[in-house]
Amino acid sequence: NASAEKHLAKGSAAPGPVPKDYIRVYSMRFCPFAQRTRLVFKAKGIKHEIINVHLADKPEWYLKKNPFGIVLTLETPAGEVIYESPITCEYLDEVYPEKKLFPSSPFAKAQQKMMLEHFSKRIGYFYRISSGRKNGQDVSGLEAELKEKLSKLNEDLVNKKTKFFGGDSITMIDYMMWPWFERLETFELQHCLDGTPELKKWTERMREDPAVKATMYSVDAHKAFYKTFLDGNPDFDYGL
Amino acid sequence: NASAEKHLAKGSAAPGPVPKDYIRVYSMRFCPFAQRTRLVFKAKGIKHEIINVHLADKPEWYLKKNPFGIVLTLETPAGEVIYESPITCEYLDEVYPEKKLFPSSPFAKAQQKMMLEHFSKRIGYFYRISSGRKNGQDVSGLEAELKEKLSKLNEDLVNKKTKFFGGDSITMIDYMMWPWFERLETFELQHCLDGTPELKKWTERMREDPAVKATMYSVDAHKAFYKTFLDGNPDFDYGL
Repeated sequence: NASAEKHLAKGSAAPGPVPKDYIRVYSMRFCPFAQRTRLVFKAKGIKHEIINVHLADKPEWYLKKNPFGIVLTLETPAGEVIYESPITCEYLDEVYPEKKLFPSSPFAKAQQKMMLEHFSKRIGYFYRISSGRKNGQDVSGLEAELKEKLSKLNEDLVNKKTKFFGGDSITMIDYMMWPWFERLETFELQHCLDGTPELKKWTERMREDPAVKATMYSVDAHKAFYKTFLDGNPDFDYGL
Repeated sequence: NASAEKHLAKGSAAPGPVPKDYIRVYSMRFCPFAQRTRLVFKAKGIKHEIINVHLADKPEWYLKKNPFGIVLTLETPAGEVIYESPITCEYLDEVYPEKKLFPSSPFAKAQQKMMLEHFSKRIGYFYRISSGRKNGQDVSGLEAELKEKLSKLNEDLVNKKTKFFGGDSITMIDYMMWPWFERLETFELQHCLDGTPELKKWTERMREDPAVKATMYSVDAHKAFYKTFLDGNPDFDYGL
């Protein structure tokens, strides 16, 4: 995995200028939002360097780059700074037109954005269910709601009769949703795919994609990190 | 104001096909999100027909068009349906390339989207302050926070030395933020501009824009509608 550098914390030296022809990515190894952009880098073959940022002990210099202190942040050799994962992904797709990930039709692109908007509103389920379970709460209602949402995604694939959500090859929307499906077992929600065979096949196809393979962590690594995260003391450098 | 048709409610007849060369807009007259898209229509001179939807008593046929039942929704003669205000605005800017509202540079466009993202997270303040005040709560803390956010916008104009947020002419970001500034007096928050002279000048310049004028309601109409909204019985047809 390309994202193998330790996370820089408060007191670390600020990195120098971004090398020519490169884009710098400030990331956190296990962050699913940051993985979206890392998938786009890999899929499009864009030269980039990754600097991992310790999100629980942020370097002073990072807050000057991004006052919100979130990852992922892009920085160009010209000093341009861009953040918010869907915005960075669309920026990269526009600046590097080779292997376009968004469809060229404005309507098809708008459809992917609507789908992303709905998916983004559901992301909270994964965390609420797994942290609720840890705290001994009854999460069966939340699980039923999540299953209902996933069955809508399954239905969408059935209706479209395509291998991926934007057609028979991977497009932007697949990468935008993937990071949470990579973590299903980590959230102990793998069984939620039992009633959604087409969606399950989609996850199997996604695992074969070179960009997915290149950004993926093992279930063991995800689980180990997520345990430290739920315990309130995230070990960003786990396994390094 | 172009949006002068009464709102269709449950039991109303479903509208027929969208006329050729037109885009149909399902809207609510006083909705600030819907106004964003109406501003884009006016600014770009796109032929459209408005159908107002009674949001408190939604027609059955509307929920078939948009399962979320929100406004604004676009419908094309081909039956394509698009919703979520920023998605509809970008779609229109791509399909109708005359008088582009987003800058052509991917970075400048990404900057506008980051700004929109931050602004959108602040929209809740306007409603929390005005409804809190109505309920006799102490809203001085919320007001101080809002003023702080507005002073950031003011600072942005000071640093850029431009008349609008994307340069010396109006671009997409100005229209995306405007509807809440048009309603400042309605929210009884007009005084929040006292310490932000550049932002205040921006609001004065915006009021001169033909698209803003064409979609604007009077302070009296906004106040009358907002009162019925806060009372829990919104009079969408106020003044018709």
